[in-house]
Parts: sequence; C-alpha cells; structure tokens
Amino acid sequence: MEPVKVGLLGLGTVGSGTVRVLKRNSDEITRRAGRGIELVAAAARNLDSLGDLDVSGMRLTEEALEVVDDPEVQVIVELIGGTTLARELVLRAIDQGKHVVTANKALIALHGNEIFSRAQERGVMVAFEAAVAGGIPIIKAIREGLTGNRIEWLAGIINGTGNFILTEMRDKGREFADVLAEAQRLGYAEADPTFDVEGVDAAHKLTILASIAFGIPLQFDRVYTEGISGISRDDVVYANELGYRIKHLGIARRANGGIELRVHPTLIPERRLIANVDGVLNAVLVWGDAVGPTLYYGPGAGSEPTASAVVADLVDVVRALTTDPENRVPHLAFQADALSDVSILSMDDVQTAFYLRLRVLDRPGVMADITRILADLDISIEAIMQKEPDEDTQEADVIMLTHQVREGNLNQAIGRIESLDSVITPVTRIRLENLK
Amino acid sequence: MEPVKVGLLGLGTVGSGTVRVLKRNSDEITRRAGRGIELVAAAARNLDSLGDLDVSGMRLTEEALEVVDDPEVQVIVELIGGTTLARELVLRAIDQGKHVVTANKALIALHGNEIFSRAQERGVMVAFEAAVAGGIPIIKAIREGLTGNRIEWLAGIINGTGNFILTEMRDKGREFADVLAEAQRLGYAEADPTFDVEGVDAAHKLTILASIAFGIPLQFDRVYTEGISGISRDDVVYANELGYRIKHLGIARRANGGIELRVHPTLIPERRLIANVDGVLNAVLVWGDAVGPTLYYGPGAGSEPTASAVVADLVDVVRALTTDPENRVPHLAFQADALSDVSILSMDDVQTAFYLRLRVLDRPGVMADITRILADLDISIEAIMQKEPDEDTQEADVIMLTHQVREGNLNQAIGRIESLDSVITPVTRIRLENLK
Repeated sequence: MEPVKVGLLGLGTVGSGTVRVLKRNSDEITRRAGRGIELVAAAARNLDSLGDLDVSGMRLTEEALEVVDDPEVQVIVELIGGTTLARELVLRAIDQGKHVVTANKALIALHGNEIFSRAQERGVMVAFEAAVAGGIPIIKAIREGLTGNRIEWLAGIINGTGNFILTEMRDKGREFADVLAEAQRLGYAEADPTFDVEGVDAAHKLTILASIAFGIPLQFDRVYTEGISGISRDDVVYANELGYRIKHLGIARRANGGIELRVHPTLIPERRLIANVDGVLNAVLVWGDAVGPTLYYGPGAGSEPTASAVVADLVDVVRALTTDPENRVPHLAFQADALSDVSILSMDDVQTAFYLRLRVLDRPGVMADITRILADLDISIEAIMQKEPDEDTQEADVIMLTHQVREGNLNQAIGRIESLDSVITPVTRIRLENLK
Repeated sequence: MEPVKVGLLGLGTVGSGTVRVLKRNSDEITRRAGRGIELVAAAARNLDSLGDLDVSGMRLTEEALEVVDDPEVQVIVELIGGTTLARELVLRAIDQGKHVVTANKALIALHGNEIFSRAQERGVMVAFEAAVAGGIPIIKAIREGLTGNRIEWLAGIINGTGNFILTEMRDKGREFADVLAEAQRLGYAEADPTFDVEGVDAAHKLTILASIAFGIPLQFDRVYTEGISGISRDDVVYANELGYRIKHLGIARRANGGIELRVHPTLIPERRLIANVDGVLNAVLVWGDAVGPTLYYGPGAGSEPTASAVVADLVDVVRALTTDPENRVPHLAFQADALSDVSILSMDDVQTAFYLRLRVLDRPGVMADITRILADLDISIEAIMQKEPDEDTQEADVIMLTHQVREGNLNQAIGRIESLDSVITPVTRIRLENLK
C-alpha cells in the first residue's frame, strides 16, 4: 500500500526531531501502522540552518503555504508555534480536507473550539497529543484510557522549566533569579521566560486537560494563573521543614458550583509520588471515581520526546485511514504479519548487577578466597559491607554489590563460594537494576 | 442510536465493579462513546450471592454459554478467569462474530496468539486493557501512545500483592511469611498465593507487555520467573543501607542476541520514582528511544479500578462500531454536541489550604492579633512555626499552615494582617494541596 504523504511545517527543535524519529524508526513505525509514513515536503523559516538533518526525499521551501497547498500532501504536521499564522495554515489545511497533527498548545487552547468544529464539518482529523506534556501520552490516557470514569480532578507538573527551577532552588538552596539565569544559559528557558515562569504555558496545557477530563469547551481566559517568581529560597526551606515540596501545578477540579481551573505554586506532601518528580520532567496525576489515582510521568519537552507524541498522532491518523475500524490497533501493537521472531535469551546470557549476601566464619583469608573466585570469573565488585560478627558464633554477614555480570558466570561463582568451608549458608542473590 | 448490547460473563469482584461503573457513569460514558452501553445479560456462578448489586435490565443465568449465544448480545465481557472454559467461551463468541473484552491475563498470555488470529479472521475486536496493571491504561500507552519509538526496555511492578508484602517488610521490619499471612487475612492475597508471590501472575502480564513493546508473539513459556518468598528481612534492611529498595519487577529488554524476559526480586536505587511505588499499587516504566523514560502508575487490581479498564475497552469497541474512523475519538473526549456548560469558579470561591509566611516584630501580642484575625474569618490553623528572631532587628519569620479555607476569606485576612504595625513585609501565601 502507498505510504501516507506528510508535509511538515517547521524544522526547528520539534520538527527536526520528528524527521529524525520518522527516518530512524521507519521500519517499526510501518510495522505498527500497517503502512509507511513518508515526509514529502517541509517548510522551514531558514533553509540554510538545517545543519546535517537528513531531508532527503522532501521538497523544501521557506513558504509554509506551499506545503499546505501541495496536492500530494495528505497530512499536515504543524510545528511552527504561535497562534496567528499557525491558525491560518491549520484552517486552510482542514478546508482542503487534509488531516492535521500539531504540537501547538497555545493554538489549541485559544482556537481549538473553532478548529475542531471546522475539522468535524470537513471530516478530517486534528490530533494534538504533543501539545500537553511532550512525550507523555496523557491526552490518549484521559480521552481513551479513562473513559469509564467520572474524573474528579487532575493536577500536573506541566512546565519543565518551572519544575527545573524549583528543583534547583530546593536541592542547591539557590534563589529564583539565579537559577532562572542558569536555565536560560542551558537553553531550558527562553530569553523571555514569561510564558514558563508566569504560568501561561501551563495554563494553555491545563485548558486542554480540563476540557478532555470534564467535557467542557476550551476556556483559556478562565484559568487563574500565578507564576513562581514570587517563591523565595526561604519558602522552599520552610516547606521542606514542614514535610512538603513546592511544585508549580496546574489543577482542574470539580467543586460545588463549578470547576476550578488554576495554575499556581503549591505545597504538596513530600511522600506523594508527584512531589518527587524533579528537574525538567513532567507528571500528571488524574483522579477518576472508578480507578482512583493514576499518574503519568515523563519528559514534557525536548526534540525527540515531543516528536514521539507527534509520530504517535501520525500513526493514529494512518491507522484510521488505512484499516477497518475493527483492526485499527493490532492486538499485539504490530501488524499480525509483521511480528518478529527474535529469540528470548536464556537467563545464563542475561547481564545484570547483583546483590549477594553470605554468612561466613570471621577468620583470616575468607574474604581473600571469595574475592579470588569472583575475580577468576570476571566479576567485579562495586561495594562490600561486612557486618559485625556475632559474639557467640563468630559468624558474620557479608553483603556485596557486583558490577554487571553474565548470570552464567555468577552462578558458577556462587557454586564455588558455597563450597568454601568458611561459608556457612547458601548465598542469597538478588539482581540489581539501575533502571536508567 | 440504539445502545450497544453487552453480555457479561462473571459477576465476581471485577464483574460487579463493571456493573456499578457502567450504571453510575452511564451519562458520561454515553457522552464520550457517542452511544449508550447496555448490559442486557450476565452469567454468574451463583445467582444467590449477588447481594445488593443492581442487575436491573439484565437477563441472569448461571450458564455462561447462554450469554455467549444470546442473539441480542453484540459484545461479550469475559471476567470469569481461568484458561479452559474462558478460552472456549471467548472463541465461541468470536466465531459468532461478537466482539470480546477480557481482563484475563492468563488467557491472553497462554492463548492470545490463537484468539487474536481467530478474531482477525472473523473481523471482530478483542480488547484486554484490564489484563495488565488493572486501571492503568498501559496497553493503550504502549500500543498507541509510544508508536514512534523503538522500545528499548520496560520494567514493571505488576503484582500488587507482592509489592504490598515487600513494602510491609521494609516499613515494619517484618518477615515475609508474617506479612503474607496478614495479606491473606486482608483479602489481598489468595488462599493459594503461589500465582502472586512466585511471580506467575507477573509473568503473564510481562508476556503481554513484551509482545506489544517489541512486536513478538506471546511466549509465556520463555519467561524466567522467580518469586519473593526467598527475600528475608535482612536483605531488605541491607539493601536500604546501601541506598536501594527491593521490588518484584517484570523486566523485558532488548539485548545483544535476543530479548530478556524475566520476573524476579530486584534492587533499584531508592531515588528512582518507581522505587517509591508502595503498597498494592502498580507502575510500569517504559524506555523508548525517542521519548526516553515514561512511567505509568495506579491501582493494579481491585473491583472498580479493573472495571475502569474494562469499560474503557467497551468504549473503544463502541466508538469503532459507531463512528467514522475520522471521528472515532472526539477532539475533547466527549462528543462535540455533548459538552457541558458548567461554569468555571472564581478564585474567591476556591477552597484550599495555605502556607503563609510573615515577617513580624518579636514583641508580645503579635501572634494573638494574627490568630484573632484568622479566627474571625473562619480560618483554622494546622501548624505554626516561629523562627528565632534576628538579634539586631528583633524581626522573626512566622510560618503557618491553614486548614482548607475559602480563598476570598483568606485574602481578607491577609489584608487585615498586613495592616498590623508589627507585621513588616507583605504576607507570602502559597496554596497547599494534599492530592489524595
């Protein structure tokens, strides 16, 4: 089947990430979507600044309109940002019967009602997963994963720059202005940081989340918005002393008489999982009456994380265009005739680090024997902890953490260690994963 | 439009939850799905033990086959568990052209390849979100939300009973057998706890997650499975001393030469978010090459949390049956003509708790004045912390946490407090949310 032809508006951070992800993962994406996704045209503000981005096969222009009007293009991906030109281009694409994928939170928060109603008239799709919380599929989770629930409230860390600043203030005891300046140097914060630190960006996202959670029209102008520039180092310290963290949250909640829509710094108990979401990461906590609390966590911005959401939307569009409704999403995510026969490894060949606990007689040479066995099998030790020996028995616990090792080797080593006279009980071994 | 007619197999924990959620939230569900969902028939092992469950409008039987064969039923929800009768009933439903929703992880892990291939031949849907991690929409996240990624690995706490036991061992210093006995008393663990504590249940779920992440057939018999019954209190303590938590993880990972599929106790650094997922809760961490790490957290079992996933699957089926592919999921989650005009509250009417910081002159009567103002406006205080006064200026910081208060009242109080002579700087106020 012919690939679906896509035109890209914008080759900046997210646009170039989208090109890279679509090219690098085209095989997996096609196996999932049931059909290829081909970038045939792209518009960039300045074609001289594309660096080494692989734009092969794409007609390039500095005129976004040319891409929208390109008769070959079936789907427009809008990544130019802003709300004036972007609105015009998106509406024009819709009017031409083209589907639209956008990462533009301001556009959806301010003009979504108009755009969606036009799209519905024309029978085209408008997808916007990337507009909220970057690579976290939070729109899909709420719009499709929690449909059985009456959603009571949601609260999100939905601006990575603000969260980075608050995390640094807490961890390093620094003042707001100082950290902001660094964030700007690192490229996390724009030269004009107002949208991030005064909460406007979070308010755009909250507008969208509240609509899909409660089934209300988009109402950006009704969001109460307070930034983090008034938070002092003292407040962060005092909050910690009281057992709280300060986070910049977007909160939407059903209350008596209406819905609360608010973005502001918030103390939350430090034992909550969301209180421990640090740095530039995002998380959204959603409370449904049936499911209770669910939380979605991940990178809320950045080139490829945002592209991840853009491409997921493209796959959604392609699946809808391509397959019967009954087969839209393959049972095992990939098309049934595109499953892979890669083999499952035997545990002997799996590599992990290990925690080992041994009970030994506290006499000279024991540790030397053990470490010699480990060294002979290429097992290196990350940490050793020997507990005080028991006064009566002169037995002591030895705990070791190894570096990564082939499990087959470790099992051999344990066999030899257990045969030592000075090792009393079987060795306890628990695998250790860093998960990063 | 006529509602979609559903037949339910099983009215136990999840089945009764499904009935309650569908009835309680039928208005919201219909607004989302674009069409009603009607339970017309149900089978239970023992019709005398339904208690006060509202089964109005449903034909009841103790013969599951009657529901499958009921000509009015378009969708079968299989919640009886097990793999023999459940397999027969599901295949029979498929053969009759009926769509299937199931929460049965063992059935999918062991017989999914056969069931999916039969479903594809017959052009019917088989949905199984509830089979993994209960109410967390993890199947949807991986199968639809991360489709742009090459998934490198995933690691999940996917058995709540095991996680409850490990959490209790750590928090209370108790031994495995002791906590297991309590979990059985509390109803978290079955009388035969093997499936939970020896990792079989987690291996079923991991089988499913690995398939949808990597695009491989279901291969339950290739999962390495090790339980938590060998973990001692000492190991939990030693791991903590080294900066780790012990979790029972299911891990699937691409490695050189194949895929690792393993369920076993695992040390993970305590600063990882997933290390802080405690009690009966579940979480799955997925690493995609574009998005990086994303984490999905929530209740992995229980009546209504699991029903939440069952109903989400039903809404997916109904949307696919009902709407054009282009309009399958409404932009704002609810049908465009079913949005609600509920109003957004003004901030004055929002109720939250507050953190207040004031700088006061350290002289008699100051605290009395302040607390009097708060009391007059119905603001009660949860905690007060007064810092040592500065030796030169005799100024001191006072920090207060209030209970929930109407924001309008708080603003009035702050106005009055700031007009006191002994209060030197404007009052800093930060909202406080418990988020539970």
